[in-house]
Formats: sequence, C-alpha cells, structure tokens
Amino acid sequence: MTGNTFGKAFSITSFGESHGAAMGVVIDGCLPNLLVDFDLIKNDLARRKPGQSAITTARNEPEEFEILSGVFEGRTLGTPISIIIRNADANSKDYESIKEIYRPSHADYTYQEKYGIRDYRGGGRQSARETISRVLAGSFAKMILSKLGVTVQAYVSQVHELELKTSYLDLDLDQTEKNLVRCPDPEMAKKMIALIEQAKAEGDTLGGVISCVIKNVPVGWGEPVFDKLNADLAKAMFSINAVKGFDLGSGFGGLNLKGSEHNDVFSKVGDKIITKTNNSGGIQGGISNGEDIYFRVGFKPVASISIAQESLDMSHESVKFTTEGRHDPCVLPRAVPIVEAMAALVLVDHYLRNSSIKVQPFM
Amino acid sequence: MTGNTFGKAFSITSFGESHGAAMGVVIDGCLPNLLVDFDLIKNDLARRKPGQSAITTARNEPEEFEILSGVFEGRTLGTPISIIIRNADANSKDYESIKEIYRPSHADYTYQEKYGIRDYRGGGRQSARETISRVLAGSFAKMILSKLGVTVQAYVSQVHELELKTSYLDLDLDQTEKNLVRCPDPEMAKKMIALIEQAKAEGDTLGGVISCVIKNVPVGWGEPVFDKLNADLAKAMFSINAVKGFDLGSGFGGLNLKGSEHNDVFSKVGDKIITKTNNSGGIQGGISNGEDIYFRVGFKPVASISIAQESLDMSHESVKFTTEGRHDPCVLPRAVPIVEAMAALVLVDHYLRNSSIKVQPFM
Amino acid sequence: MTGNTFGKAFSITSFGESHGAAMGVVIDGCLPNLLVDFDLIKNDLARRKPGQSAITTARNEPEEFEILSGVFEGRTLGTPISIIIRNADANSKDYESIKEIYRPSHADYTYQEKYGIRDYRGGGRQSARETISRVLAGSFAKMILSKLGVTVQAYVSQVHELELKTSYLDLDLDQTEKNLVRCPDPEMAKKMIALIEQAKAEGDTLGGVISCVIKNVPVGWGEPVFDKLNADLAKAMFSINAVKGFDLGSGFGGLNLKGSEHNDVFSKVGDKIITKTNNSGGIQGGISNGEDIYFRVGFKPVASISIAQESLDMSHESVKFTTEGRHDPCVLPRAVPIVEAMAALVLVDHYLRNSSIKVQPFM
Amino acid sequence: MTGNTFGKAFSITSFGESHGAAMGVVIDGCLPNLLVDFDLIKNDLARRKPGQSAITTARNEPEEFEILSGVFEGRTLGTPISIIIRNADANSKDYESIKEIYRPSHADYTYQEKYGIRDYRGGGRQSARETISRVLAGSFAKMILSKLGVTVQAYVSQVHELELKTSYLDLDLDQTEKNLVRCPDPEMAKKMIALIEQAKAEGDTLGGVISCVIKNVPVGWGEPVFDKLNADLAKAMFSINAVKGFDLGSGFGGLNLKGSEHNDVFSKVGDKIITKTNNSGGIQGGISNGEDIYFRVGFKPVASISIAQESLDMSHESVKFTTEGRHDPCVLPRAVPIVEAMAALVLVDHYLRNSSIKVQPFM
Repeated sequence: MTGNTFGKAFSITSFGESHGAAMGVVIDGCLPNLLVDFDLIKNDLARRKPGQSAITTARNEPEEFEILSGVFEGRTLGTPISIIIRNADANSKDYESIKEIYRPSHADYTYQEKYGIRDYRGGGRQSARETISRVLAGSFAKMILSKLGVTVQAYVSQVHELELKTSYLDLDLDQTEKNLVRCPDPEMAKKMIALIEQAKAEGDTLGGVISCVIKNVPVGWGEPVFDKLNADLAKAMFSINAVKGFDLGSGFGGLNLKGSEHNDVFSKVGDKIITKTNNSGGIQGGISNGEDIYFRVGFKPVASISIAQESLDMSHESVKFTTEGRHDPCVLPRAVPIVEAMAALVLVDHYLRNSSIKVQPFM
Repeated sequence: MTGNTFGKAFSITSFGESHGAAMGVVIDGCLPNLLVDFDLIKNDLARRKPGQSAITTARNEPEEFEILSGVFEGRTLGTPISIIIRNADANSKDYESIKEIYRPSHADYTYQEKYGIRDYRGGGRQSARETISRVLAGSFAKMILSKLGVTVQAYVSQVHELELKTSYLDLDLDQTEKNLVRCPDPEMAKKMIALIEQAKAEGDTLGGVISCVIKNVPVGWGEPVFDKLNADLAKAMFSINAVKGFDLGSGFGGLNLKGSEHNDVFSKVGDKIITKTNNSGGIQGGISNGEDIYFRVGFKPVASISIAQESLDMSHESVKFTTEGRHDPCVLPRAVPIVEAMAALVLVDHYLRNSSIKVQPFM
Repeated sequence: MTGNTFGKAFSITSFGESHGAAMGVVIDGCLPNLLVDFDLIKNDLARRKPGQSAITTARNEPEEFEILSGVFEGRTLGTPISIIIRNADANSKDYESIKEIYRPSHADYTYQEKYGIRDYRGGGRQSARETISRVLAGSFAKMILSKLGVTVQAYVSQVHELELKTSYLDLDLDQTEKNLVRCPDPEMAKKMIALIEQAKAEGDTLGGVISCVIKNVPVGWGEPVFDKLNADLAKAMFSINAVKGFDLGSGFGGLNLKGSEHNDVFSKVGDKIITKTNNSGGIQGGISNGEDIYFRVGFKPVASISIAQESLDMSHESVKFTTEGRHDPCVLPRAVPIVEAMAALVLVDHYLRNSSIKVQPFM
Repeated sequence: MTGNTFGKAFSITSFGESHGAAMGVVIDGCLPNLLVDFDLIKNDLARRKPGQSAITTARNEPEEFEILSGVFEGRTLGTPISIIIRNADANSKDYESIKEIYRPSHADYTYQEKYGIRDYRGGGRQSARETISRVLAGSFAKMILSKLGVTVQAYVSQVHELELKTSYLDLDLDQTEKNLVRCPDPEMAKKMIALIEQAKAEGDTLGGVISCVIKNVPVGWGEPVFDKLNADLAKAMFSINAVKGFDLGSGFGGLNLKGSEHNDVFSKVGDKIITKTNNSGGIQGGISNGEDIYFRVGFKPVASISIAQESLDMSHESVKFTTEGRHDPCVLPRAVPIVEAMAALVLVDHYLRNSSIKVQPFM
C-alpha cells in the first residue's frame, strides 16, 4: 500500500527517480474539454527550475515536458493525462562517492531500511526533483481554478531569522515574482537575498516560511469529518520535502487570543455574508466559508551542505564526507510554485468532490 | 465523495450527530485474535469525557459503549468492529434558541450552505462530540501498538500565553494524568488551571498547544511521496476540531537554525543506528527512522463563549445572542486523548501498510 | 486492507456477525435533503426476510431497523447514515455441534485459516444474513434513483433445470411479487414452487438464476477503463454469497452470434438516439448508452442441506454430521431484493461519480 | 472520480489513447528487490501483439517498452514503476472517415455523450490497445506470483459454436501456445482456426470463451465481504473490452446440480486439507481454499467488421459505412495474455492485502 497517489476526485500519481529515465505524473480526473494552457505549465516549471538565479542551485538542465495522453487537439479528453520530463543524464558519477553513505537528515537510511534497496543517484526517489510531477499536475488544477475565478498565490515570508510580519492584506502580491527570492516586500527581499548569498558563501543552508493566499473559493468545499479542507491542505504541504510546520489563519500566532477575541463575527456586504475578521483562515468546520484561505508552511534548511560532515556508511562505519555537486542554499524561492501546486490540487479535488451535491434533483 | 473514513489499512468510519441516537465508529482492518483491553477503552473515554473536572464543561452524561460486531469471546475476529455510544437525550431544547443563528466561528453557516440542511442540536455533526468515535477506534489502535512496544503520550504544553518550554526529554510524562489540565509540569499545571478558571469566570475560552511524543516506532513506517508518516499525522491532527497549527520535530522553532546546525548526525549505540540530535522528529523522507516522533498541535480557543455576541441568522438578519448550556473554557485537557487516538490510528495504519514488504519471499 | 466498504462516491461499510449483537451499515455519501422512504426500507427488508413463506427457511425473527445517524426530521443530512438491526439471540446453541466442523462448501475452513479465529455461530460473518446491510443501504440508493426515474427490477428466471427463456421484454415484471418464488411467469412460478417443495422434502437445495432489468439510466454512467459500469455490476453481484456466474446483455448466450448479427445499430426515435437491438445490455465501452441494462446472476444451490454429510473437523479428523436448524431449500426468492440492492448501489455510485462532469463551467 | 486505477495494494494506473503519443502504466506497490524478468514482459507483449499470425489483425507495429522509473540495476525499487510503449503514428488518416460516425457496438457514442469530446483516431481511449498497459503490469504481477509458485494459465475454450467441453484437468495446458488460436486441444484448435479464417474471409467476426486456471494459491487470499477474490476477478475480467460473461468453478453449468451434489467434501491427502470435488472453483466465502481456481470469460464478437453497416453520425443523421483498416476476425487468441494479466493483478493485490495478517505479533 504505497503512497504515490494524491487526491480522490482529481487524482495524481507521481513517478520517477532523480537520475532515472524520467520524472512524470498521471492525472486521472481532470475535467474534459479544458483548453490546455501550455504557457502556464512552462511558467510554473520555470519558477521551480534549478539554476534560475544566483541564489538557487547552479545545476541547470532543460526541462521539456511531453504530454503522452489525455490531451487531443489542445483540449483535455477526460481520460488520464500523462506527462513526463526526461532526466538529462547529468553527473550520476558525482554520487558514486555517497553511494554507501547515509547522509545526515536525508532519507538514505530510511529508504535503505524500508526497501532494502535504493537508487542513490541524486537522492533517487527522495529527491526534491520529484516535485516536478506536482508542479505539472498543479498547472492543470490551476487551469480549472482559473475558470472558477479562484487564485492561489504563494510567497516567501521568512528566511531564517528574517520574517516578514506584514499581513498579506497589506502586501502587493504582484510584486512576488519581481525578485529572486519571491518575497513581495522589495526591501525585505533584498535582505533575504543577501542572507542567502552569505549562507551560500559559507556552504550552508537556510530554512524559512512560505505563505499562501487563496481567494474566491466558494462556500462549501471540504468534506468533514476527516477530509476537511484544512486537513487535506495540511497533508499536502507536509508531503513536500523539508516541510516541518503548517498553520492556518490565526495559526500558532492566534493562541494568545481569547475566544471572544478570536471569533469571526458574521456580517453582510450587500447580499453577501462575510466575516468581519478572518482568524478562521477561510475554513470553518473543515468547509470553506467564502473568505480568503491563508496559511504558512515552514521549511527546514535543506540537508545538503558543502561543509564536511560526519556520518555512518552502509556497513555502519563512521565516515566523514562533503557533499559534492551543487545544491540550493535556500530552497524557499523554488518551493513557491510547489506550495501553489499542492494547494491547487487540494482545491480542485474538493471542488469536484463537492460538485455532486450541486446536481441533486431534490430538496 | 464525503470524507468520514480515515486510514487505508486500518480504516475507520465515523458516524453520529451530537443529539442524534448515537455516536459510533466502524473499524475495518483490525488484526484478528487481538485480546480486547476493555479497561483501556474505558480509560480513554473517561479522559475525553465532559464533566470530568472543574475546568471542563459541566455537562455530564454516561458514556457506555457497546461493541456491536467484530469481537467474539473477548477477541477481535478480523471482521469490522462496530462500536456505538448512545447520546443521552439531554437538553436538545437548549438549542432551539440557536436553531436559526449562524454562530461565529462555528460551522453552522458552512454546513447549511454546503448541505442545505443541518442538525442544529448541539452542533449536530460538527460537534466535537464526534471525537468519541476517534477515541474508541484509537483504543484498538493502541492495543496493537502496545504489542509492538510503541507508546503514544500527549500532554498540554501551552494554555494561552502560558507555554511550557521544557523539552519532553526533560519532563516526566507520567505526571501528565496527575492534574486536571494534563500538563506534566506540576507548577505550570497549577498556573494553567488558574488561568482557565479565570477564563471560565469571564465566560471566555482559551486555546493552546498539545504536544505528543511517540516512542519505539521501528524504522520504515511511512509511504512516500504523498502518504509520508508526517503528512498523515498532519492531516490527522488537522481533522480535529479547532486545530490551527501543527509542527514536527524542530518545527517552526527550528527555522532559525542553519543546515549545519539542523542536520541530525548518524551515530551508533551498540549495534543500533541513532541520530545524535533529533530535529527531524523521528521521520526522514516521510519514513520513521527509529528516533522519537514528537510534534505540537495548536488549538484555537473554542468558539462557544458565554459572552453576548453579534451574528446573522438564517434570514441573514442581524442578531445578538448568548450561548446557553455549558461549554469548555479550554478544550485542551480533554483533547489530549483525541490527539493520542489520531496519532495511534496513523501509526497502526502505516504499520500495516509497511508490513507487506516484510513478508516478501525474495532479495 | 480488509474489504467491507463498497462504492467510491456512495460508499457503504457493512458490519455484523449472524449471532453477534447486530448487523448494520454506514452509508457515506448519500445526498442531503432526501426525504427518507421508510416504507421502501421495510418492504425491501420484508422481501429479504427469512420465514416469509413456505419455500423459505422457517427461521423467523423480527427485523426492526434503527437509524442511528444521518437522518434528521425525516430527511438525510449529507452526513453518514448508520442503520442497525439487532440479532435476536436465537439458537446459538444449535451451532455448538458444528463449532469444530468445517462444513462442506461453507467458508468455515477458509475463515479459520485466514483469520486464525471465527465466530462459528450461524456462520458468523460469512452468513448470508450480512446481506441485510446491503438491502438497507440499497433502499437509500433506490430513493435517489427514484428521483431520477431509474427503476431496478429483479426476478427469478431459473430454478435448477426450470428455466424461463422468455425475454424480459415479453414479461410483465409487475407479476414478480405476486407469487412466492418471485418469477413473473405465473405458470413457471407454480412449477418452480413445486420443485422447491420437493427439494425441501428431500432435505436438499436448489440453485438458479436471477435476472435483473434496469430502465431509464441516462447516457454516461460508468468510468473506464477499470470502473466500467458492467465491471462494477459484475463485482457487486459476485460479492453476494453463492453467486457463481454473471452475464450481461447477450451474455454467454450471444457467443454464437457473429459480429454482423451482434452489433447494435443506432437509430432515432424522435430526437432520441436508440439502438435497434440491445445485445450490449445497455452498456458500451463501460458507459451506459440509455438502453435497458439487463443481466443474469447465477446462484449455486446453498451448501446447508439436511442430508448427512462427511467432512473434517478442526483437528483434521473425519466427521459425519447433519445440519441442524432450518435453512432455505432455494435462496433465489429471497435474493431478489439483494440483487436489486447491489445494482442500485452501483448505479447511484456511478451517478454521483459522473455528476462532476456535468457541473463543469467550460466547453 | 474517474476509474483508471486498479488494485488497492498492487495498484496500477493505465493511460494512453490508441493514436496518442504512447500507451503506458504506472505500478504503485510492487515489492522492492524483485529481479525484473525482461523476457517475460517481451513474451507476454508478443502474445498480445497484433499481426502475430494469419488469424489476427494484420496491423503490425513495433512494441518496444521503456521503463521510466522504479527499476534500478535490474531490480525493483519499491517506488512507482512507469512503463510506456510509443504508438507508431500509423494511419490515423484511416480514421478521418469515421470521425463523425457512431460505429455500432463501439463506444463512440457513449464517450462523446459522457465527455463531450473524444479522440476518434483508432478508438482513442476505448481502443483495446489500452490492454497493453495491463499486460505490462501483469508481467510484474506474474514475477511475484512466480516466487510464490502460483501459475496462471489461460486458453481459448470456445470460438463461436465450437466449444471445448473437456475439463482443464484432462487437457495438457502446455499445448496452448503451440497453435495460433491458443487452444490446448490440437484437433479443436484446427477447427477453430478454420472457422476464424472463414469469418475473416466473410469480413465478419466471432466471439468465444477464454478459460483460465490458477494453481497453487495458498489458503487465505480474498477480503470479504465485498472484495472477495471471486468478486475482484469478476470485475477484472469485465473491465476487459468485449467481455459479456464470467463464471467461476461449476458456474452457470452447475446450476442443475442439487446442494448434495454440488457441495465439495473436505478430505485429507497427507497433512494437507483438500476438497474431493472442486465445484467451488478454489474459492469459498470469497477466500481461496487452496484448490485450483478456474473460471470462464465470455467475449462477444468484436464490433469492427468489414461488412457495410448502417448507423448515425454526430449530427444524428443516418449513414452507411464500412470499417476500413484491419481488424481481428476473432480477438480471443490475443486476449489470452490479457486475461492472465488481469488475473495476476488481482492475485498479487490480494496476496499483499492478506500479508499484513501474517506478520501479526499475537495469538
């Protein structure tokens, strides 16, 4: 009972090892007759791509996607959409030296123990390169959301100790893509970039927080009591490599409010029901209430550093090693489209799951 | 595609409205031949029960569980275990007054909009009474974990602004059940109780954090890339009413560490591989690594307060109302067994999911 | 990964042992706001009930169902509907004598080997009494189908060598419920009854065929390539105890037609597309085409006979035994509502699964 | 909620349109460390391949499979195995003429109505070419079964009116692959081939029956009450294009036996429990009992014939047309490996599902 499929109605199956033949995804459940937005796919891939800037890993490979099925004359067929991206055969030899090493805070040891075998090249299946499959599928989810007017925007709100405390309501999220670190506050962005460059120079890595804002979700998405919209978002985010924390709405920061302060009072604007505050983060009882959904995702500093480390090898002997090859000093900027993709996948899944209620012939 | 089933191998289906005939659960996938520990079930129910102390809701009803199937002569059959607890028909009339009101930060509005109907009595399906089903199922999960030596211990580590910063490693978790608030630090417990009593006197409510520690999980549980052990724990916790945050291991607090500081170096104690630190929280690449799993769950202050509030009714007219009936000033102490139950359910599910690899006839 | 849940969108979980506390079912996914037709439930239960006539088992127990959740003021809530029927504590002692015996063509041996334990009383979980759960759930499925104009009618078309060869098109299916054997041809019904009475006198049992006709299914239900409507019907029928064969449309009988004879030519009646013949049985490529769906389900003679038999006991010693208690000489008449229930469950599941396509905002 | 995934523990997702870029499959749940038997894959593909003999379609294209993931240094990794076969870009133009036509007994009409779009080239997703994905996945299932000693052997037992009535016990199944029609009785094979050649000459098509025999399945596979081994086999077979009937063990032919004649009496051979007869077909109560599993699968004559036919086009106008291109006069010989593949997939899924019981630490 392995776990490479995500979503019940908009269901994706991810496959691929970092240095195998290809990464890919099969989407089962995409609505038919959807005009495929190829530019959107390309753009999201480019945002996730290594080598896109001075503060990401220098590894740079072409990422040409190929749609193998499910699309005909530019439209979706309602049949499974399979998409692949070939892995350029880059530098598997670089990994010979770590073939026998359990790298600290990587999953070499757990994969080896669980499966009794692993593809050590580039991290194999544990590689963050796997998120390419998610971004590909997320683009299709975004195409559907776009028809519904739903937008998903993520941005970097913290790098190491540099935290952007401004509410998203006071930020211009259109600024996000205008700097390398994908922080919508230009001043903070500069500081973050400088900090990342310093870490890079030291051969070290930094963690941080990605915030995400979802607007225009209709009331009614989410399936209590287990498949609450927030529960599925939490799982989606925690399925991304390096994620260590998730909170929604007021989150951990709202724990010092009392009930009387935290409750979101209902009100009306015209015919529309709104809440005066939005500590709930747009979800009540696991169901969207029409307000903005917003949440934070905490990423640890990635484990690949250029500083010599101690560890054990597969014979359980002590070793000292240094990671060769290139790596990201801070994965946050490239993780922005991944967070968006996972959010979009959850949303479309729940849109479809909720839709059957709407066609009912009675009441 | 509703969402009242949780788990793929140890699969539970929850049912029941707060003032309907009964709450209950069906467990499909419990191993056969397991000697049922009835005392464990009773004890976990008692820990979740309303009215157990001066700092919980005064509502007090008998909670007699009845096993309808799946157990024969004290042992599990490997067939579905169905368990119910009757709802004492208490005070549904209390709810007549809120029948038409969308209470702030409750799910009255979202349920009504989603389903076009709701059982308003006692919150109906959105009631936290639903967690009784989880505790019942969690007890069976704990029985299996117990055979494997795995322990799950949760405790209250924060109430409002009172935060217990001591690591679980420096606490005596056996103290947890010795005070009303379920905080293992007796001094902090006293302060928390005082704070809760004050909130109760004010008719207000408080949120906080439950921490959970899981010991002795073998290496290998967790199914990348989506059903990572951490991802399923995140979902499990976020499926509990009032949860707003979840973090694992170093969590949000570890974001100010660099990679070189955060990495968990492998080492050996005798023949056993361990990590010198455990920022990973016992999970690497979504798979347990044999170290302690520990995480935090943030609960908002519950929405039912005794202070008058404004809201809208079902005709979208403004109303002012005060919650009648009794409620918890702080839900944290009673949520401790719920967190444990959800954690135990995830663990057993992954134990069973991982087990097929172990019977393989080749290598 | 046990298998007591059926359906993906209209999902039912069955539980209960024949002589345990209760049989029951949880339905997750029933549409909200459906007016519950209690008479339909009662009527379907009565049709399945033992002791209803001279040609069924004489065992007779009250079958009062209780809805525990999911229904409020006579309407469905969209939350899980749990229904139970208590098992009258009848004659478990009758089964003491077979406690150690592996009865031929029963599942005593396979259950014992698989689970290492079994409830031997009345067959425990393997008992056909389990189908009560299906009939209960099927009634709710029929309520939804009724709103859509879809009808499901099953009838006995063969008992042992007595085969009703008339096409359903030439039968008056309203006659089905007018005789004990549920065969819509009154003359054939008399012969079947006589044959069953003879088998009963001999202590023997007879098998046969139930035919089922479904009318007014819209075009479009069914999810290729695996969850074809026919594939799910096949599984549904084969999940019923004693079923040994299933065929659809022209079925096994159509194998002596050539392609040119078997093909169903499209034609028009007014604006409606029809097929001139219906060898396809209303399903093409796994998707309903708007024509009648019809199929046959073959049941073996039930294994409980009143004639002395040889077998082995749990110590693998030879034994000779005679089944005590009462049993059905021919299970077919009572299986008619079970076949209908399983068909209705499949149909509603596919109605809901297909419905999301219909709400799409594009084309 | 589309349906392109099959199996819960050994789970496959099929994708591809007949004239799209590629057909393919992702297998999630294959055990790790399995040595891949490339010859087995090639051989099963060759048995399914068009153009393999004078009695199959003359269309002939190379079928080179490529494994994109999940295999490393010749062994499975326990991660998703993705395999594709490119579609040679052959003769899509042939299909221009039927672009607007709803071919009789094909799924053009139902696909168009359901999805509002279809890939008409070569039948698109409804094409039997899709079964390539199943054969690819089935080969991996067979590799696991092979380690367990389980064999799956299918053969043609009926073509049109020519029925091989000999029990499989009296046949030499090793003869199956020695003739073009895959019938293990050489004399019958000759007659079948002659009949197929005659149909081919007439431009017509023939249906028939494939029988399948599975040996050495241990006691205990199958998950009552819905995922019975027979129920999942029924679904698997009915998910194959053109299947109209399925029966197991004594099947429809056993309906004229009485219970006293049909019951399989338990006996012992040495320490092993066997049944003296095997009307049950190796499955009792939905669980394998250690005896041979055998069943029949009825295939209708395929709908593509070379004789002129009437139909409607997409504007609902009457048309007369003749299928161009080449087709199989009788699909049975090529369907033998498909039946085996689907059977193998069901078996391995249930082997894995049952395995968790075996690791339990108690009793």
